Amino acid sequence: MTNKEIYFDNAASTYIYDEVVQHINKINTEFFANPSSTHLAGISSFEQIKKMKENFCEILHIKPSSLIFTSGGAESNNFAIKSVAFANMLKSYNIVISSYEHPSVMNTAYYLEKFGFEIRVCHLNEFGHLDLDMLKKLVDNNTILVSTAHVCSETGSVTDIKKISDIIKAINRKCYYHVDAVQSLGKFPINLSMYNNIDLMSFSSHKIHGPKGVGALYIKPKVKIDPFIIGSQSAGLRAGTLNTSGICGFCLALSIIDKNRESNYIKTQILRKYLIDELNSAFSDDIFLVSPMDGSPYILNIAFRSIKSEVLLNALSQKSIYVSSGSACNSKTGISKTLKTMNIPKDFIEGAIRISFCDLNTTDEVDIFIENLRELIPMLQLFVRR
Amino acid sequence: MTNKEIYFDNAASTYIYDEVVQHINKINTEFFANPSSTHLAGISSFEQIKKMKENFCEILHIKPSSLIFTSGGAESNNFAIKSVAFANMLKSYNIVISSYEHPSVMNTAYYLEKFGFEIRVCHLNEFGHLDLDMLKKLVDNNTILVSTAHVCSETGSVTDIKKISDIIKAINRKCYYHVDAVQSLGKFPINLSMYNNIDLMSFSSHKIHGPKGVGALYIKPKVKIDPFIIGSQSAGLRAGTLNTSGICGFCLALSIIDKNRESNYIKTQILRKYLIDELNSAFSDDIFLVSPMDGSPYILNIAFRSIKSEVLLNALSQKSIYVSSGSACNSKTGISKTLKTMNIPKDFIEGAIRISFCDLNTTDEVDIFIENLRELIPMLQLFVRR
Repeated sequence: MTNKEIYFDNAASTYIYDEVVQHINKINTEFFANPSSTHLAGISSFEQIKKMKENFCEILHIKPSSLIFTSGGAESNNFAIKSVAFANMLKSYNIVISSYEHPSVMNTAYYLEKFGFEIRVCHLNEFGHLDLDMLKKLVDNNTILVSTAHVCSETGSVTDIKKISDIIKAINRKCYYHVDAVQSLGKFPINLSMYNNIDLMSFSSHKIHGPKGVGALYIKPKVKIDPFIIGSQSAGLRAGTLNTSGICGFCLALSIIDKNRESNYIKTQILRKYLIDELNSAFSDDIFLVSPMDGSPYILNIAFRSIKSEVLLNALSQKSIYVSSGSACNSKTGISKTLKTMNIPKDFIEGAIRISFCDLNTTDEVDIFIENLRELIPMLQLFVRR
Repeated sequence: MTNKEIYFDNAASTYIYDEVVQHINKINTEFFANPSSTHLAGISSFEQIKKMKENFCEILHIKPSSLIFTSGGAESNNFAIKSVAFANMLKSYNIVISSYEHPSVMNTAYYLEKFGFEIRVCHLNEFGHLDLDMLKKLVDNNTILVSTAHVCSETGSVTDIKKISDIIKAINRKCYYHVDAVQSLGKFPINLSMYNNIDLMSFSSHKIHGPKGVGALYIKPKVKIDPFIIGSQSAGLRAGTLNTSGICGFCLALSIIDKNRESNYIKTQILRKYLIDELNSAFSDDIFLVSPMDGSPYILNIAFRSIKSEVLLNALSQKSIYVSSGSACNSKTGISKTLKTMNIPKDFIEGAIRISFCDLNTTDEVDIFIENLRELIPMLQLFVRR
């Protein structure tokens, strides 16, 4: 990537902090022994992970024994959903998810239908939030798991996970609640000691300037869960040689982003507000704000009238401006299920793009973006209307 | 690790090639965009993986569409076994494994008992090889999968996977055969175009001087298999953002080790022979060769009379010599299931250690190792006999 490129796709993946790149380099060179080996070289590798993990867990206010490192957010989501389901298989059980889940939650839940689970989907209300009245009707004594994202990867809609966790447990004390926190870790305060009714939480490294191929799953003590990758490591729940450099890189990234969390939040909040104002002033009736106004400052989803988002995305890409047409995971499969369930006007539904920020983005970049949109949008609309 | 340290635990993990460390660094710095994103930055990341994967697949003589990158050997083994089982769930079906499988194969198979699968275990014959007569009796029309290691991680015993694959298919054309090739990739010739009856094969990166947290699973076209990590990437079978630097590092490691495969093989063969001769001359009746003589040159398992292996391992570790008491994955759980099923004399069973080589090991290191054993063994035997 060069300085001339404008990267507005930070919800898909982020640049890796320099310190993290250097640390990975050091670990790969000096600590290659298997952290499970009991000789001194193995113990040295394990100690690298141990001290970094302790710091990671302090930030989340959990015990290290409650955190298992995985290969990423998708594995964490699969782990949470499948392994809770397989440990609690009884007849006529159901799982509740929201309509705005990432494919690694939604498709995993539907996969479980073949094992006899009923999948129930809770929709959004007119304000873009989870419909709590509907949720109360969906959760019953046969619900073993509810899974929702903390921040929706496509729209940035923020879910009140504390409130939802309390609602669920009030209906069914035994029902587990899993939160996909892939888009909120390092961006929103997450203090798990204050969330007594949250049982599982998924995290990803490469969304917070850490390396790819690493994630984590928080599992509250006493949650009845099967192992996901079976073997012998990690308390029997997730086998596989611990990825020393990946895990240490992830932990270092969290410690850096956490220190800057509040200032980053304010910075992106100002940037998002600036972008919305500029868009409104440039396109007024030709844009539709898909994201709720009170959504995450890191994500803005907007739809243009009479535009195909992939065409706009490609045109912007030619000008070295990188945005997304939804979540990267949906990018090759057309309009997402999430957007389909929202009340987006017909003229706009195909023209939704996602702009997602990190600390490096600036108002100058937003200005260049708007300038390019002013040129491209009328041209592309003309093309579609023909 | 310093030059004074002797690392004989290469079956647990290996040093990372310098070129690989540098390449990971470059990818982490320059190609951070999500390889699934459709803008130019995403495409550039994807291209990095594509060209390296093509080279990887050429070495194995397979099509790129048949290979899925995973988070490591344990995931690949879990993926192969669970996902074939879940895609072929019918009553009274069985799965056949050998008695020398890695925990990520053996424990995964036993996990499937709760879903109704019967697990059958094939033992070794007196020569330390899979008992083919027993195998023929175990495989029947209800067998959906046979899984064996190519090279046993604990003893280095080499399995004739071609012969076994032909035996299985002669009995039951529809039975799938999975090979755990974690200890053979890069060390033994693997040309999958010559193995028509092999359906799945697992690989790991960090056993061949690549990074940890990466592996791969070969899946022959038309194998009926469920997705393992569900979401939307990788043909729907393994979701999760592609780990660009990890995958590229793995591919580069394979291309380097493959070029040196034959010379490495001869070198370690000479080294293993030298070690066996020196051990025999130094300890004669006090050692028992656990590994078959025709085993992999990279692995030697020997047992000492009246010794506890973990005590010896620790004593050697104090002298900066690193060996293993079995596979690293078993290292904290006592005598392995594999060794228990072998005919190891009672006096020796607790004293088995594994020495595993790579290209950097030398006869000088073997000399220092023997010298230290000459000092330690009588002392430790005295301790046990007291």
